Amino acid sequence: MPGSTGKPLEGLRVVECASFVAGPSGCMTLGQLGADIIRVDPIGGGPDYQRWPVSERTGKSLYWTALNKGKRSVAVDLRSPEGRGLVIALATASGRDNGIVVDNNAGRPWLSYEVLAERRTDVIQVHIQGYADGRPAVDYTVNPEVGVPHLTGPAGSGDPVNHVLPAWDLLAGMTAVTGLLAALHRRERSGQGAFLQLALHDVALAGVAGMGWLAEAEEQGDRSRHGNHLYGSFGVDFATGDGRRVMVVALTPRQWAALRTVTGTEKVFAALEDVLGVDLDEESERFRLRETIAAVLRPWFEARVLDEVTRELDAAHVLWSGYRTMGEVAAEIRAGGGSGVIGQVDQPGIGEVLTARSPLRRGEEYGPVATAPRLGEHTGEVLGEVLGLDGAELGGLVDRGVVAPF
Amino acid sequence: MPGSTGKPLEGLRVVECASFVAGPSGCMTLGQLGADIIRVDPIGGGPDYQRWPVSERTGKSLYWTALNKGKRSVAVDLRSPEGRGLVIALATASGRDNGIVVDNNAGRPWLSYEVLAERRTDVIQVHIQGYADGRPAVDYTVNPEVGVPHLTGPAGSGDPVNHVLPAWDLLAGMTAVTGLLAALHRRERSGQGAFLQLALHDVALAGVAGMGWLAEAEEQGDRSRHGNHLYGSFGVDFATGDGRRVMVVALTPRQWAALRTVTGTEKVFAALEDVLGVDLDEESERFRLRETIAAVLRPWFEARVLDEVTRELDAAHVLWSGYRTMGEVAAEIRAGGGSGVIGQVDQPGIGEVLTARSPLRRGEEYGPVATAPRLGEHTGEVLGEVLGLDGAELGGLVDRGVVAPF
Repeated sequence: MPGSTGKPLEGLRVVECASFVAGPSGCMTLGQLGADIIRVDPIGGGPDYQRWPVSERTGKSLYWTALNKGKRSVAVDLRSPEGRGLVIALATASGRDNGIVVDNNAGRPWLSYEVLAERRTDVIQVHIQGYADGRPAVDYTVNPEVGVPHLTGPAGSGDPVNHVLPAWDLLAGMTAVTGLLAALHRRERSGQGAFLQLALHDVALAGVAGMGWLAEAEEQGDRSRHGNHLYGSFGVDFATGDGRRVMVVALTPRQWAALRTVTGTEKVFAALEDVLGVDLDEESERFRLRETIAAVLRPWFEARVLDEVTRELDAAHVLWSGYRTMGEVAAEIRAGGGSGVIGQVDQPGIGEVLTARSPLRRGEEYGPVATAPRLGEHTGEVLGEVLGLDGAELGGLVDRGVVAPF
Repeated sequence: MPGSTGKPLEGLRVVECASFVAGPSGCMTLGQLGADIIRVDPIGGGPDYQRWPVSERTGKSLYWTALNKGKRSVAVDLRSPEGRGLVIALATASGRDNGIVVDNNAGRPWLSYEVLAERRTDVIQVHIQGYADGRPAVDYTVNPEVGVPHLTGPAGSGDPVNHVLPAWDLLAGMTAVTGLLAALHRRERSGQGAFLQLALHDVALAGVAGMGWLAEAEEQGDRSRHGNHLYGSFGVDFATGDGRRVMVVALTPRQWAALRTVTGTEKVFAALEDVLGVDLDEESERFRLRETIAAVLRPWFEARVLDEVTRELDAAHVLWSGYRTMGEVAAEIRAGGGSGVIGQVDQPGIGEVLTARSPLRRGEEYGPVATAPRLGEHTGEVLGEVLGLDGAELGGLVDRGVVAPF
């Protein structure tokens, strides 16, 4: 096919009426897999348009531009019936590769599945919610509700620790597009559309239940928090002689053997096993004796600078990593020590920034980098291409304030 | 179709040769969407078979059973050429719905794409890795490397805080199956197979870059950690008069207005805006003055017990939630206050446990609950059904120790 990128979703068109992390990150992934993502925003931008972090250079949101890379942007007056009609027409345009929409709008009955399916019976809509009953929720409210902050942070401390990473949001986005592609598979075979709903709170509950944590709490009561120790096996952080910090993990017997060997502690642990009557090859025993194990190992790390620790642990095939601040991660990538998943772009409105490719590689090959659109940049192009509007019609829409000037 | 479940991936067969969280959780989601997931393990189980949490009642892993619900289990001697041959045959079986494999095996050249594609040119393989260069990594080592623990935890504290939730693992699993379904879409249309690789470290790097955090750190240096405050707008936890804790968020002007109104603090904040010359309708100003705002609001929460706080915040449509321990989450669900996403099953080997359905609903409808298989439970059934082995052949495999007795 001339001009084909060979990407698996090439040709597919997805209308995204969503904001913040979940919908935008999921749809961005579909875009990286080749789909044409049309992000629809209200004129002036959605509630996430100024979300932090923002660039000090220009005031533009680094968050919004990072989450909307490679998309086309359409800006419409979503309060006007005519603007709403345009969105419905985009979402239900005819053609095998159209008729797919992702939204996270609470209280927008005009964009309901009933409305869309009336226009196109095989439409696929994935509706992302806070709670399944339609009440709003965000990652920061959902996470405390499912018990994770009470498990996080220093042992013995009473106060729960919120996570900073909006993990449930990211997971919800990817779950949403997994459901979308499954529904598309069915539509390709049977012609049937689908209305899928996904609540962030359900993603989080299913997430903690999905690792057995809910069943554990019901059977055994609340697990005590254990600081930076990994749960149920051995893994914890150590300070090095030069004030750096490393995370060291011995999940499997082989990793545990490697750690003992490189630190020269085999005899110490053999004697400990003898005197305590335990077998530290059992991961549960390593967890139970985690503080003891860490105390035996600590002097080895304190006696070495990070460079030495790196050399020796790597040579011994220990499973470990070094802690970095975000600034150090960026600096390391700039110095060439990063990963091919990070590249750079000249982001219009901001300037040169580090940016991510899709982590999904075809063989060894990463996909290209991309920039985010200017808000409303593609309004005319998309309405012309998908709905067949001509210049006069587009001009009328701008004049009536139905779409932003583009 | 008689007997059809109507699930979108019905008929699809995926061979899973993976352990721990990423591959198993991603494939479980495909199973919940209707696919037949065949999990292949070594005889005796993979490295995750005893992973914590484990049931005190029976010693069985609550983690393994939660991550492998609804799958069929095949147990094979993966060191023997004959056992490896069986896995290759399962992964490359003919038929439109076969020829899909997910693995996370480092150093298993016998299960390489080259080997598989030689047997079936349109095979789809998704290979999950630690690092893109093949070195091992786990969530607990990757997260410190990408800078998140340095952003997490109490403001001013020097020590990084590891997250407890293996967020990158969960996200990698769902990213892997998103890639898988995209490749399947292409195969259905073009007949082409695919070899996709996904490194956990890349998922994490792309994750932090994907919210603009990497670009921010490069431009502005390291952000200081800010405890339980939400970044870039207003959101923080408050203690209630009865010693409970709530998370309160005012991301948007409307949420901020609701919070001021219900707490009766409009005049205080108006006066503060006057004297400080700021506009707290700007989220960046709410973040800058977060400690001041929290200090003004705190007495309102301290003067009320959780029941009152709940009633008043809900009536005012404030965005908030209550902190719970995992045990409280479980108890609340048992008391009927949970979500339809959680159900219960009688898990063979363990007994009655709380378990999750898929958070993806068709309309309002959740899918069914499911139990995990016994290790190797379906070895005979699967090898008979997919490879056409008869009883004598299966008996021979058992006798030769190639598969576990089933």
